[in-house]
Amino acid sequence: ARPKVGYYYTGKNVRSMLTEQVGRIKVQDVQSVPVVVTAGTSAYDAVVTMFLEDVGSVFVVEPGGILIGVVSRKDVLKVAMGGSDLYKMPVKVLMTPMPKIIVTTPDEPVLTAAKKIIENEVDSLPVVVPASQQDNKALEIVGRLTKTNIARLFVDLGEGRGGEQL
Amino acid sequence: ARPKVGYYYTGKNVRSMLTEQVGRIKVQDVQSVPVVVTAGTSAYDAVVTMFLEDVGSVFVVEPGGILIGVVSRKDVLKVAMGGSDLYKMPVKVLMTPMPKIIVTTPDEPVLTAAKKIIENEVDSLPVVVPASQQDNKALEIVGRLTKTNIARLFVDLGEGRGGEQL
Repeated sequence: ARPKVGYYYTGKNVRSMLTEQVGRIKVQDVQSVPVVVTAGTSAYDAVVTMFLEDVGSVFVVEPGGILIGVVSRKDVLKVAMGGSDLYKMPVKVLMTPMPKIIVTTPDEPVLTAAKKIIENEVDSLPVVVPASQQDNKALEIVGRLTKTNIARLFVDLGEGRGGEQL
Repeated sequence: ARPKVGYYYTGKNVRSMLTEQVGRIKVQDVQSVPVVVTAGTSAYDAVVTMFLEDVGSVFVVEPGGILIGVVSRKDVLKVAMGGSDLYKMPVKVLMTPMPKIIVTTPDEPVLTAAKKIIENEVDSLPVVVPASQQDNKALEIVGRLTKTNIARLFVDLGEGRGGEQL
């Protein structure tokens, strides 16, 4: 029997269809705008930025948007509890520096990126592309992928919205 | 033609199958253990608990596990930036108190709970049940549902694992 228009029978089970189709959704389809500060910014101003932008971490960049570090709410809280003066401390001192940062790219499947978040126990990943210059290792930040992006995608997919690919 | 064993043809499209099957996964299938402190705990000790347990927020309870509030990393950071003495301040002063807290229950679909997290812009929800006593409004905390739980479920489902119901 031919399937009705609008329905299809692929001979696959639900699990494999799900895997295949969710696998087509890329990081760039769900990513957010990155919030960045420069290396000389004080830890205090970095926290003010976190509150103003309502983000859990800010990325530290050099001119050209080159990613050099990341500072989280947790990092600052640890320093604040230790009694350090956040006004005088530059973010560079407390950031997690490159190349220790786990990154993702715009065309990576969001599923792979989500796995990196879970396995490395981080809240977000910077979305990067190679910087247009001689230095091969320099990465320019173009976005951020957070657990919120993933939770929102889960809700959208579960409600039958989102993921142009489905 | 009869479908082969192990495959099935339901006459539905992928989207609706996905919606239907993900809808069967309950909060209790993915929730974590809640991290709690009592109302008299200092803000300082609450933060130490956050670091030791590696959680973004702790729940404040009365005897019997009755939920009375929640304190996040963000709440404490705000107070710390303001220069207050975290040793002397009880969490009760800075917590978000009931009934302002958005909650979920063990048998709520995780999709509905995830939607609450996104729409209310919170990192986690306490999982509660009615407390076994006269006071109808008292809720006992039995778990926590975080964005991490949801991201992990997304990864598990996308890789063809998890969700006994699928």
